[in-house]
Amino acid sequence: MPRFTHPRLEDVPLELALHALADPNRLAMVARLADTEQLSCTNAAPCDSIPKSTLSNHLKLLRAAGLIETTQAGREMINRLRRKEFEQRFPGLLDAILANRLA
Amino acid sequence: MPRFTHPRLEDVPLELALHALADPNRLAMVARLADTEQLSCTNAAPCDSIPKSTLSNHLKLLRAAGLIETTQAGREMINRLRRKEFEQRFPGLLDAILANRLA
Repeated sequence: MPRFTHPRLEDVPLELALHALADPNRLAMVARLADTEQLSCTNAAPCDSIPKSTLSNHLKLLRAAGLIETTQAGREMINRLRRKEFEQRFPGLLDAILANRLA
Repeated sequence: MPRFTHPRLEDVPLELALHALADPNRLAMVARLADTEQLSCTNAAPCDSIPKSTLSNHLKLLRAAGLIETTQAGREMINRLRRKEFEQRFPGLLDAILANRLA
């Protein structure tokens, strides 16, 4: 049974997607997931010192924005970017944001 | 003497720009300004029923994000999109967001 629910991308409004990405920690997490196949929650953290509850909230918001999928793999939670679906929903948006991240 | 201050675009972080655009009212205002040369504050309002203080806050945030310039013209305040400068700072970003606005 899935522990997390994930929205259909067509139900995600643009404003929610932008809000999810308008935070340096969440954007760093998305950028790291964009470079990797998948990451455990701990490895997806933007830094080691982030409190677990904060990390959990960031992941929750990224899920709600249709940006990531979290699944259980044994004792670990694994996150992956829903890149293809997000791109279909908001063409060019994630690329434009990631390209400007270090601007 | 200018009544409002405007940031240099190079001092605007991406997260602030995204935050400014992650609100349906502000995004509607930016979209309207993108279609028009310039708008008074009243005409830039996303709807007639918006309280003046709320409108003023939205405009303030858009200014802080380097998205608009507000200048005095007689008794009116006139807003224009800093489109060219914003585009130079964050190439492709505003176009990608505006293109996805009605998605």
